[in-house]
Amino acid sequence: MPFTATVLTMFPEAFPGALGVSLIGTAWREKGLWSLETLDIRDFSEDKRGFLDDTPAGGGPGQVLKADVVARALDSVAGPPRPLLYMSARGRPLTQARVKEWAKADGITVLCGRFEGVDQRVLDARGFEEVSVGDAVLAGGEAAAMLVIEACVRLIPGVLGSGESLSTESFEDGLLEHPQYTRPRTFEGLDIPEVLLSGDHRKMAIWRQEQRELTTQERRPDLWQAHLANRPAESSANSKLKGKKARGEQD
Amino acid sequence: MPFTATVLTMFPEAFPGALGVSLIGTAWREKGLWSLETLDIRDFSEDKRGFLDDTPAGGGPGQVLKADVVARALDSVAGPPRPLLYMSARGRPLTQARVKEWAKADGITVLCGRFEGVDQRVLDARGFEEVSVGDAVLAGGEAAAMLVIEACVRLIPGVLGSGESLSTESFEDGLLEHPQYTRPRTFEGLDIPEVLLSGDHRKMAIWRQEQRELTTQERRPDLWQAHLANRPAESSANSKLKGKKARGEQD
Repeated sequence: MPFTATVLTMFPEAFPGALGVSLIGTAWREKGLWSLETLDIRDFSEDKRGFLDDTPAGGGPGQVLKADVVARALDSVAGPPRPLLYMSARGRPLTQARVKEWAKADGITVLCGRFEGVDQRVLDARGFEEVSVGDAVLAGGEAAAMLVIEACVRLIPGVLGSGESLSTESFEDGLLEHPQYTRPRTFEGLDIPEVLLSGDHRKMAIWRQEQRELTTQERRPDLWQAHLANRPAESSANSKLKGKKARGEQD
Repeated sequence: MPFTATVLTMFPEAFPGALGVSLIGTAWREKGLWSLETLDIRDFSEDKRGFLDDTPAGGGPGQVLKADVVARALDSVAGPPRPLLYMSARGRPLTQARVKEWAKADGITVLCGRFEGVDQRVLDARGFEEVSVGDAVLAGGEAAAMLVIEACVRLIPGVLGSGESLSTESFEDGLLEHPQYTRPRTFEGLDIPEVLLSGDHRKMAIWRQEQRELTTQERRPDLWQAHLANRPAESSANSKLKGKKARGEQD
């Protein structure tokens, strides 16, 4: 059985979206390396009028997706237990480490919320992992679900072509990637950094490592602190820079 | 002119995806409160064979999207300058504060990367803001673009119905939301927390605030530290709990 991504959503027509294109889409539709299944939560209402939601206990604005509806939808998913994800602003932030774990499973089941959220009891009772992607509030979990599924599927062997690399990537070692450049040598008066054209592989490697460290310090102080804590004794290319900005110059 | 989201992508067929459904989709297609425009980056190659990418300067795996191709695609977008976003694992994390700024503009232009990335010079020269959503590596920026556009569009007046709330939301004051519950009173042996059925609005407000603080401490120590730093003198509901877990009980 290939990896199966099952999405519980009120809007199955949102899919496949980003999951239907490029190598991810080809791996699904042509190579059969993974499969996408959407379940319409609306089909699991037992209310005569098809209601899925009700007002929040204790009052407040909006509506809450009912626990029993979600439970029935979930129980209809065939096969052995798989990681259960609920896309939610209340969740723990998505990390590549978790993605790697999920990608090793037979598949994942992803619940997309709407309204003010989902009754917490079904999340607790069934062991959903609450996951957030970016500190922004969304109208629903569908775009976030696509994102998580894409992150998992691209790790399945055979999905990415040989032109794509899994080895040198942001987050793999806790640092962001270095910037990239390609031909032409000059674009609107801006040159490719000289060092990258030098042919000196040692210098290039040092420069790229410096760029990774500087970018991480500047944009992701959280990752930088974790990186320092994890590798206190590591010889850092950045230690030579003493906080000055590298802009492509060599020392 | 309504808010216009323009997406530069190699896979326009990935859209609208999550942007075509529910209130976001209705606001676009029926109410005309915003509009979605996709531009195929492939149309802007001047190479006879339609190449968009080239090998990375300095070597390394993969291919880099060319600066001139992106520049031409961007220059074809009509109208006054708007926020330019590039979805990238190298970016600064998405925040609701930035979303609010973008939502006030006439629109946003979002560049979706593929391959190993985009030539850094076009990002620098044109002033793209690099934005990341979740610390995971994706195959492309399309799902992330949907997510950012959805977050912006839902803030446009009239897009969300009266049943949806903008006032009480995760991130609005630096804390995650409290859990939600709705009927039935008992679900698979689990009760709605007693306090929410008490009718005592003061007690309910305290309990919900406690839940917000505990959940934030547990799942988002980063937000919790920022919250404490921003509001040192604030009387915290959590100060009475001294780290013990609230599970719905009243003190």
